[in-house]
Amino acid sequence: MPTGRQLPGLVDDEPACSIERSLQILGERWSLLVLREVFAGRHKFAEIQSSLGIASNLLSARLKLLVESGVLDTQTYQEPGSRPRQSYHLTAAGSDLLVVLGALQQWGDRHRPRPSGPSALRRVRSTGRPVHVGFLDDEGREVPANEVTMLADRSAKA
Amino acid sequence: MPTGRQLPGLVDDEPACSIERSLQILGERWSLLVLREVFAGRHKFAEIQSSLGIASNLLSARLKLLVESGVLDTQTYQEPGSRPRQSYHLTAAGSDLLVVLGALQQWGDRHRPRPSGPSALRRVRSTGRPVHVGFLDDEGREVPANEVTMLADRSAKA
Repeated sequence: MPTGRQLPGLVDDEPACSIERSLQILGERWSLLVLREVFAGRHKFAEIQSSLGIASNLLSARLKLLVESGVLDTQTYQEPGSRPRQSYHLTAAGSDLLVVLGALQQWGDRHRPRPSGPSALRRVRSTGRPVHVGFLDDEGREVPANEVTMLADRSAKA
Repeated sequence: MPTGRQLPGLVDDEPACSIERSLQILGERWSLLVLREVFAGRHKFAEIQSSLGIASNLLSARLKLLVESGVLDTQTYQEPGSRPRQSYHLTAAGSDLLVVLGALQQWGDRHRPRPSGPSALRRVRSTGRPVHVGFLDDEGREVPANEVTMLADRSAKA
């Protein structure tokens, strides 16, 4: 069953492929890096902008898309002497993207390594043990990628 | 240890964040959809182009990037009466992207559902049992995403 909120107007003439529907939001340049910043605890426009070095108008557009898509929601805060501003927070759908970022991070570590090594490692918070991203079956056992089938023939399903 | 091939000129002034280095290749519009096509068994330029409805010059540029990045490699084939042409195949680094596509597909199914349901399901090839993408520890046990830490403070690492 769908657990997520739908974009207004998301109807059955959207792309049949879920990868493609995800990329409508996440494939926009900067979207995943904006989300990385929010996962890293940066919630204010100025913090995200300063960390990414992205133009204001682009960051506004990306945050707007992520909010409209139900990936981020906003809270209002006010610092002394300033006007009220919005801060940006992960929804449940947004939090579910950690595994997408984890898969990209792992691939970058393996296949686009830096001479000085990874800048971040995936670990269990409580124990510090290493964590990786992979496929699991319905009993929680890891399944090697070459035993997974996942790409239907779209021409038969569209 | 890095297991992947490096892009020519990939040096330590590349982005410190592995997510960002991955997106240098995969974040380009169409890159992941081109890879989806190759995973689905479409290896020829004309097949990929016809399936995606992408302009030739764009598809050429994406394939070139994916080959230069070591994600795809080429083979030469020749059909009767035609000139020799290139077909495109996943390298080991390319095959490792199945879990990235799987994570995007799963997220799209959950949070960008279509009324008619998913167009493709992730399954174990031999048994048909359902498969999902998740985090695993070093003993192969699933780790809930909220127990995973993976985003170092880049300011301390850059």
